Amino acid sequence: MEAIEKAKLAKDASRKLAILTDKERNEALSAMADALEKHSKEILEGNKKDASSPKAKHIDRLMLNEQRIKGMADGLRDVSKLKSPVGETVKEWVQKDGLKIKEIRVPLGVVGIIYEARPNVTADVAGLCIKSGNSAVLKGGSDAINSNIAIVKILKEALKKTKVSPDAIQLIEDREAVNDLLKARGLVDVIIPRGGAELIKFVVENSRIPVIETGAGVCHVYVDEFGDLNKAVPIIINAKTQRPTVCNAIDTLLVSKKIAKELLPKLHKEMPQVELRGDEEARKILPDIRAATEKDWDTEHLGLTLGVKVVPSIDEAINHIETHGTHHSDAIITENKGHAQKFTKEIDSACVYVNASTRFSDGGEFGFGAEVGISTQKLHARGPMGLEALTSIKYIVEGSGQVRK
Amino acid sequence: MEAIEKAKLAKDASRKLAILTDKERNEALSAMADALEKHSKEILEGNKKDASSPKAKHIDRLMLNEQRIKGMADGLRDVSKLKSPVGETVKEWVQKDGLKIKEIRVPLGVVGIIYEARPNVTADVAGLCIKSGNSAVLKGGSDAINSNIAIVKILKEALKKTKVSPDAIQLIEDREAVNDLLKARGLVDVIIPRGGAELIKFVVENSRIPVIETGAGVCHVYVDEFGDLNKAVPIIINAKTQRPTVCNAIDTLLVSKKIAKELLPKLHKEMPQVELRGDEEARKILPDIRAATEKDWDTEHLGLTLGVKVVPSIDEAINHIETHGTHHSDAIITENKGHAQKFTKEIDSACVYVNASTRFSDGGEFGFGAEVGISTQKLHARGPMGLEALTSIKYIVEGSGQVRK
Repeated sequence: MEAIEKAKLAKDASRKLAILTDKERNEALSAMADALEKHSKEILEGNKKDASSPKAKHIDRLMLNEQRIKGMADGLRDVSKLKSPVGETVKEWVQKDGLKIKEIRVPLGVVGIIYEARPNVTADVAGLCIKSGNSAVLKGGSDAINSNIAIVKILKEALKKTKVSPDAIQLIEDREAVNDLLKARGLVDVIIPRGGAELIKFVVENSRIPVIETGAGVCHVYVDEFGDLNKAVPIIINAKTQRPTVCNAIDTLLVSKKIAKELLPKLHKEMPQVELRGDEEARKILPDIRAATEKDWDTEHLGLTLGVKVVPSIDEAINHIETHGTHHSDAIITENKGHAQKFTKEIDSACVYVNASTRFSDGGEFGFGAEVGISTQKLHARGPMGLEALTSIKYIVEGSGQVRK
Repeated sequence: MEAIEKAKLAKDASRKLAILTDKERNEALSAMADALEKHSKEILEGNKKDASSPKAKHIDRLMLNEQRIKGMADGLRDVSKLKSPVGETVKEWVQKDGLKIKEIRVPLGVVGIIYEARPNVTADVAGLCIKSGNSAVLKGGSDAINSNIAIVKILKEALKKTKVSPDAIQLIEDREAVNDLLKARGLVDVIIPRGGAELIKFVVENSRIPVIETGAGVCHVYVDEFGDLNKAVPIIINAKTQRPTVCNAIDTLLVSKKIAKELLPKLHKEMPQVELRGDEEARKILPDIRAATEKDWDTEHLGLTLGVKVVPSIDEAINHIETHGTHHSDAIITENKGHAQKFTKEIDSACVYVNASTRFSDGGEFGFGAEVGISTQKLHARGPMGLEALTSIKYIVEGSGQVRK
């Protein structure tokens, strides 16, 4: 029962961690950062083993070097400079009978994170958890196991000289132990899966602990009849091509029938690297593009493919997005205030944009200073998650002998 | 597939419901209230069938009369008067590049509620859901099925004359359909079980939809060495006896060794109806009481039984609560500010009290105007849940052509 024992250690450590000061937690992050740089050789040795394993995939994401390790250390230093949400008073009021009620932010306790590939996530999420007063139970991808073992060993060693217990960071090494972790109710307060659709599905189906889902984004740009094409074209190019493999890149372009003839040829010319797949109307304007299938509207392409559909009205655009989207990030390009308002009101997505690229759906871009992931559920956290997503609340009620009548 | 079809209807209705105004939702609540009173006979007929069924349990909780139906109607009218959280701006800021980001409250969408016995819950939660812009999929106890069918029929009929679609309220009648409901991902946004420990366990283990747990409370009062006995005695009596069958009633009394000799005999005399079960130290002071077993410390008594333990220090009290409590509601009685602060900081419970009864853990008593339940988890909502617990957030990002660099 590797997972249960490690979760127990993490739980005990979390009780102490929760009552430290922000300064004490920051000192721990600083010690962790210094240790990563100081012991970079150990990390690189572990990483070399991983990269040379026959199991190794995505070598570019897996590989570490001195510069990437420095990046991990600097990331921890940046997190230490953020304002801590822990202890913040959310609300405060006095009841008629004199009871003072205060709602304050507290750490969640123990955060379980299951992730794939990139070993820098190990240091990132350990840092975010400690900054927010939580213990972290980490399960990284098996292809980065030696890198992760080295990183966690160094981080735990660094914590020994600080007020944070080394038990606050736990690494699950055995793959089978994930099943135990997902059932460690009472020990782990939340599970956050970060990775592909299969990983997330597995976690949702097997966890008995509350989960925050991150993941799939079938995202849209709708160019309204009142859209400014000088804004539309650069936004579409950015939203599709700036980083096509991520969740906030767009998958479908919806274009008002009234401006399709003007927009589509221009766009096709300026974005030649993208494979457009059009509906019938779009192919009347761009006859050389491939026909879109029904499946395309529901697909997160994660590459340089873009569905294109001509719609007769904003209502049709909204209806398409609500039917085929994943409620992640969707944009309207319009100069018409009424249409902008209608779109932001009726589109039920975590992030709804007017005249801006969907690529801004990101904790860093939103000014959160850090990103735990992008929640695709409505419970607890929605959209880009910063440190606040790693907290809960608690009510402190002060009386002078009040009893309930 | 009764549950899936009903969930689909509820989902469609929720899209329209989300964009109505508060006034339109309030008109629906008012129509629902009037209809309950007007058609009370139908409800009473259904209720009579339920009460005379051989399956009927808890007849006192099951039984309705004209007055209780009026209470349900007035409850809906009260909810309509509450401030709606929907549409509220939580935060608003402008990024360096001019992007305006606004975080606003939106309905969750479809709320599934699985509950037992009392048929008034049907009208209550339907009202809370509609007020907060959500559709409700209800599964009540099978012993109240005829009452619930009558209530839901009347409520749906009343909605026909309002802007809210009757599809916004769905009643699952078939017991087996609960399993489908718990797996209706994408249709139902949250499941809230309200009832006994078995129901909650079943839901947590079988749901693929995010759950908000409500439930068990092993609650404590700790009388500190600096506690004022004139406050302690009435608070303990209130917390134990005012309504012993509910989750925020206390189960264990912890007493500082320094004042146990003074407090315990006094308490025993003033609260003769309560069976005290003491540890060794307590039984030295009250030799006639029964010995507590280890199991007692972990038991929610839901009746007139109270464990009593004498502790040498506040640290021991905190340690006992953190080991045996359910993080629901716990109180300290003390006049010492340092001890009060230590207790409120170190006790990891939804509601932590200083010199007040734990019985105040309730949406109404907290001033929320309504109660969806008391969350015993840390994710999304913790402690008494008001309307805000039935909302999520959404980011609206307004730009003027910004793209990500």
